[in-house]
Amino acid sequence: MSDYLTGIKEFLNSEVIPLEQENLPYSELLVKLIDLRDQVKSAGWWLPQLPGEVGGMGLSLEQFGPISEILGGCPYGHFVFNCQAPDAGNMEILIEHGTPEQKEKYLQPLLKGDIRSCFAMTEPDTAGSNPILLATTATADGDDYVINGHKWFASSADGAEFAIVMLQTDPENENVHQRASQIIVPMNIPGIEFVRNIPIMGVAGEGYFSHGELKFNNVRVPKSSILGSEGAGFSIAQDRLGPGRIHHCMRWIGICERAFGMMCERAMSREISPGKSLATKQTIQNWIAESRAEINASRLMVLDAANRIDTVGAHKAKVEISTIKFFVSNVLMNVLDRAIQVHGALGITSDTLLSHWYTHERGARIYDGADEVHKSNVAREILKSY
Amino acid sequence: MSDYLTGIKEFLNSEVIPLEQENLPYSELLVKLIDLRDQVKSAGWWLPQLPGEVGGMGLSLEQFGPISEILGGCPYGHFVFNCQAPDAGNMEILIEHGTPEQKEKYLQPLLKGDIRSCFAMTEPDTAGSNPILLATTATADGDDYVINGHKWFASSADGAEFAIVMLQTDPENENVHQRASQIIVPMNIPGIEFVRNIPIMGVAGEGYFSHGELKFNNVRVPKSSILGSEGAGFSIAQDRLGPGRIHHCMRWIGICERAFGMMCERAMSREISPGKSLATKQTIQNWIAESRAEINASRLMVLDAANRIDTVGAHKAKVEISTIKFFVSNVLMNVLDRAIQVHGALGITSDTLLSHWYTHERGARIYDGADEVHKSNVAREILKSY
Amino acid sequence: MSDYLTGIKEFLNSEVIPLEQENLPYSELLVKLIDLRDQVKSAGWWLPQLPGEVGGMGLSLEQFGPISEILGGCPYGHFVFNCQAPDAGNMEILIEHGTPEQKEKYLQPLLKGDIRSCFAMTEPDTAGSNPILLATTATADGDDYVINGHKWFASSADGAEFAIVMLQTDPENENVHQRASQIIVPMNIPGIEFVRNIPIMGVAGEGYFSHGELKFNNVRVPKSSILGSEGAGFSIAQDRLGPGRIHHCMRWIGICERAFGMMCERAMSREISPGKSLATKQTIQNWIAESRAEINASRLMVLDAANRIDTVGAHKAKVEISTIKFFVSNVLMNVLDRAIQVHGALGITSDTLLSHWYTHERGARIYDGADEVHKSNVAREILKSY
Amino acid sequence: MSDYLTGIKEFLNSEVIPLEQENLPYSELLVKLIDLRDQVKSAGWWLPQLPGEVGGMGLSLEQFGPISEILGGCPYGHFVFNCQAPDAGNMEILIEHGTPEQKEKYLQPLLKGDIRSCFAMTEPDTAGSNPILLATTATADGDDYVINGHKWFASSADGAEFAIVMLQTDPENENVHQRASQIIVPMNIPGIEFVRNIPIMGVAGEGYFSHGELKFNNVRVPKSSILGSEGAGFSIAQDRLGPGRIHHCMRWIGICERAFGMMCERAMSREISPGKSLATKQTIQNWIAESRAEINASRLMVLDAANRIDTVGAHKAKVEISTIKFFVSNVLMNVLDRAIQVHGALGITSDTLLSHWYTHERGARIYDGADEVHKSNVAREILKSY
Repeated sequence: MSDYLTGIKEFLNSEVIPLEQENLPYSELLVKLIDLRDQVKSAGWWLPQLPGEVGGMGLSLEQFGPISEILGGCPYGHFVFNCQAPDAGNMEILIEHGTPEQKEKYLQPLLKGDIRSCFAMTEPDTAGSNPILLATTATADGDDYVINGHKWFASSADGAEFAIVMLQTDPENENVHQRASQIIVPMNIPGIEFVRNIPIMGVAGEGYFSHGELKFNNVRVPKSSILGSEGAGFSIAQDRLGPGRIHHCMRWIGICERAFGMMCERAMSREISPGKSLATKQTIQNWIAESRAEINASRLMVLDAANRIDTVGAHKAKVEISTIKFFVSNVLMNVLDRAIQVHGALGITSDTLLSHWYTHERGARIYDGADEVHKSNVAREILKSY
Repeated sequence: MSDYLTGIKEFLNSEVIPLEQENLPYSELLVKLIDLRDQVKSAGWWLPQLPGEVGGMGLSLEQFGPISEILGGCPYGHFVFNCQAPDAGNMEILIEHGTPEQKEKYLQPLLKGDIRSCFAMTEPDTAGSNPILLATTATADGDDYVINGHKWFASSADGAEFAIVMLQTDPENENVHQRASQIIVPMNIPGIEFVRNIPIMGVAGEGYFSHGELKFNNVRVPKSSILGSEGAGFSIAQDRLGPGRIHHCMRWIGICERAFGMMCERAMSREISPGKSLATKQTIQNWIAESRAEINASRLMVLDAANRIDTVGAHKAKVEISTIKFFVSNVLMNVLDRAIQVHGALGITSDTLLSHWYTHERGARIYDGADEVHKSNVAREILKSY
Repeated sequence: MSDYLTGIKEFLNSEVIPLEQENLPYSELLVKLIDLRDQVKSAGWWLPQLPGEVGGMGLSLEQFGPISEILGGCPYGHFVFNCQAPDAGNMEILIEHGTPEQKEKYLQPLLKGDIRSCFAMTEPDTAGSNPILLATTATADGDDYVINGHKWFASSADGAEFAIVMLQTDPENENVHQRASQIIVPMNIPGIEFVRNIPIMGVAGEGYFSHGELKFNNVRVPKSSILGSEGAGFSIAQDRLGPGRIHHCMRWIGICERAFGMMCERAMSREISPGKSLATKQTIQNWIAESRAEINASRLMVLDAANRIDTVGAHKAKVEISTIKFFVSNVLMNVLDRAIQVHGALGITSDTLLSHWYTHERGARIYDGADEVHKSNVAREILKSY
Repeated sequence: MSDYLTGIKEFLNSEVIPLEQENLPYSELLVKLIDLRDQVKSAGWWLPQLPGEVGGMGLSLEQFGPISEILGGCPYGHFVFNCQAPDAGNMEILIEHGTPEQKEKYLQPLLKGDIRSCFAMTEPDTAGSNPILLATTATADGDDYVINGHKWFASSADGAEFAIVMLQTDPENENVHQRASQIIVPMNIPGIEFVRNIPIMGVAGEGYFSHGELKFNNVRVPKSSILGSEGAGFSIAQDRLGPGRIHHCMRWIGICERAFGMMCERAMSREISPGKSLATKQTIQNWIAESRAEINASRLMVLDAANRIDTVGAHKAKVEISTIKFFVSNVLMNVLDRAIQVHGALGITSDTLLSHWYTHERGARIYDGADEVHKSNVAREILKSY
């Protein structure tokens, strides 16, 4: 294990994970997390996902993978290193497609960790799997766009400085993939209605730990707010998904490893008859072995996909990227489910992180393209050679 | 469908289910639910699980099954009919094992719906699968028992008038099945420490909709509080489990049917491309067909088990009772999981009941004996003939 | 259990099952099986699937179910009772749709057990799931039809007296469901090319235990050979499938029960360490419990479907009939697979019947409509109400 | 892909795979396969699994993996390259533990491909999972051992020159792992009773393609026939298993890839309605995507395990070696099962290789330690750290 990996792991264990037990109100927690960021910067681990030019660690995606896994073991990990979704994706978009002014105004403070942002793509009333259904629109009006629409699952919108909004600028374009654009919208301008933080399986969250529902009622932004060019919305979104999926998948593997450890500890420590632990039951052993196999498979596949993105580009790694999406999200569910079952009644309480993940990560099989969509895509891509 | 089934179904649809949308505070909801009980009584549907002698509908268990299914479709259903856990089980125990005084004091108000009760068996520190590990004790002291111990998952303890507590009265008895007893403990006496309503997957609930954690610190009750006799704790608990499992399983099937309906409606109404619904996708069709098969199988098996309990008694129906426990609890998880996936992002929000069930019914595979324990029991019982 | 069920079970155990061990050449086996038919007739069990008018037991489909289950436990069971596929289905067609001459010539000897028949529907080159692709044709020529086509999986064609052939008589009919007809074709007339008994997973079989591949090269039959009327092919085929599926499913359940018994016996008798049997392993216990649950579910569902066919007709029982097809075929595979695994190396040999069923029943998920087709049909039927 | 991999793949496609269609009698096939060995030798691909010193390709295990995968795509592949089981394992044992005389007499002709051998470990009457149950014994008698016992699943025993026999030499040794030894036994000496080639799922096979059942009736061999030393039987067997499992797993992956290709081709070529192929069905797409994911996962895990054996030794790679055993064997079954289902009726015939693999590779979940044993071993090993 590289030196920095060891260091990061120790830092996470000693400084970040202990905060989980404190059950602090969000505002107090945030102060502590932001304090920890100074240590991360001093250690040279800030922005581990980004190139050196913008102040990152300068690692390949394959090298970043293991960091994301370690950080994923704690719900606060990515935030402390400033590689949290959705900011990490937004940084990538701005680096790749932002104008100098956009970079100055939005990218720089993001890189410093001074602000947060959100990404508003999903809509409650249209199927995300089909981009041509997108109902949010930006209509040109003089030097401005006027935006109308209804978005939700804009993660971390609560407290974000700006949103990158996916919408239709040319809804009649025959080339359906050129209908959409991405536009930067400050969150504090007129017409943005913050409906609510959506309760996810009973818990609404707050600030960074939330998913916002937003309405755009005649929101007016200057045309210079567009990212890339009009009609580039989908191609930018596609670019964002490849590395984003590696981030997510490695984070999920981090969760898996932590849940796996909890499962093993519980199996060893829970007495089922005098002197005999739960670990002696063959069913529990099966679950441990199957989880080990599935987690190992996941990690190898994600790193392999990262390597392909690094070497041949995300476009040529399409099959691998879609494959890990549905494979790892299901492994995550399996491992969490088994870990809960091994914990018995404790497993369904909020006394361990297992139920947090069970509820908050159920979306893994849905967001960024439902598993079912990815499976069909993989098959269609493969069948092209037959 | 019998007349009363039709009537109950219509009543549930028109009077009870609409309350789900109102999101009332618990106290207001409770008032409304209690009001509805009058209609249930007038209609002759009160206590559908109990014999006519105690004011019930006088149905067999097999006949009660379909009622429990209908009521299970709404989280408030059983409560309105006064057949909710854990009161229904406690009523059965009191009917079967209560002294005239116990019946007068505890059973009568339960039957009338004037009070609620709880059942304190599970302990955080001992494995429920092994009764000899039970750590709560009642020590004889003059005419009293002095109770010490730590219980949790005492469902609906918050606001309960009394608890039936499972504990050891004779921890050294060589016959391990005679070590335990069940004792009635009023909830308002000294030494009962109400620790908390346990948060289940992030949500703690309140009153009837809660699971309590309790400590018993030198709680003193008269010896007349014992149910049946000293050492009868396990046999009473066993008696309780057979019919209780039919209640639960039919309730789960009710949830399945409601989730199934939601899945079908969503599949038909969700547009994935202009004029084409989600229901045209073969994967969705597979889930609908598989869910239909599994739910049908569940219902037939549970009614068959109920029929066996009715005709040959719970003891001889052991295999069937354990079989439905693990079979139906898994069908419930499958159906809920598929319904959520069909709902996409909406499925993981609290905007539908799906996430409520997904979190609050995850315990189905754990409580009343983990599935794994039941499977071993079924196999051992079957293998006796080989 | 009814008297005749007990009698049939005993007869099967004492007279039929012992033949399995003798490994007789087909011709010798056949003699023995035919001899046993006399006992069946004397006992009043002949043609258990048919009404009294044609010499059967006069049972409802639901009553016949348990007989089919018992007989299914032995590969020779149905044959000895003259309720074997495909003759049983052909008898039904002839009873329902045959002319007096057809009944005299074909039905009577079938009922007596004097001849065997086959059913030629499946074609190697067209997908059975889509009837409009059917490539075999009968062209009218004077008073005759001239038949050309290529069929396979005509079970028991080897030695059959006649075939009922499904083919297109009106391939251009706009109503695709009226293009096909069923025609009786004697097997000994010119133009019928018996290509081979198809090797199924390595074993070709012989006579009754075979699946024929046939070519029809200008085969000429009189027009009076048609069943029902021109264009009635599909509706006749549909009629045949409902009860046929009950027969198959109950037969599969019979196989399941026998394999289940073998699994239990092996688990108890196989020593894995001195004094400790394989049955002590929890994984084995899980398999036994899960198999028990799945077999029970299967039986209840099939009998329920049979009851619906008996009471409301096959057409209204469509969902139930398709549901059992895919549910029970998968249970069959699960149970066989587990039983093999419990037998270890012995399980993959031909020394037990397990491998026979594993290979010869794999088709259960394919024939009479692949599971996948049935699932889509079930979903589409259900979704009509949404 | 390395040059030799490309070359081997082309050679397999052009020279070896075509033989599959010829359905030659075993003796004729053998001649052709042996002829092909000359081309392999000339190309420098002989003994790809062995070091250069003994005439092999001198590759690491991780490098050999992809060769084994390519060869595994054809049932004759490994044989033509002289890396077939059980000879490959026997060569390893002889290289590692053979005396100069043993090497001269047995190893040299094996390396040249002049003879074949077999390995007799499994016994019909004792559970292979527990070595202390081994019932075959070698009793010292003067300068000889006298061997008695009953073995089966001695693969390729039919025509083998010698067997390596696992047996007890010191059945009372308190250290149970020192009771067994491995002894070389020529197949043509008195007392060896060749019972039969065991029919596997209906097919007995012949010569190299067979699994023998053998009895040893007072078979007498000189003491110099022992491998390593008395009591070393288990440690030798353990050594053999690590690399052997890589060989098997990579071979299984080769089968998976070939079956995967067949599945894709069938999906594209099978018309289900005019102009519409089976590949348009989402269920088929799911199977293709899931198979792709599972096969990729398998390959990465096996190569990772091979790399660990290469770098830290088989002993420290225990978890990885056991993990791939159960993971890949199940992937193999999944992929074959899906490929068969996609082929419909054709899939269960012997007209494609699918049914050959379905039957002959079902043992993969049983031999070399049943999956269930490996899972428990993996769990126990992992739990040591908790």
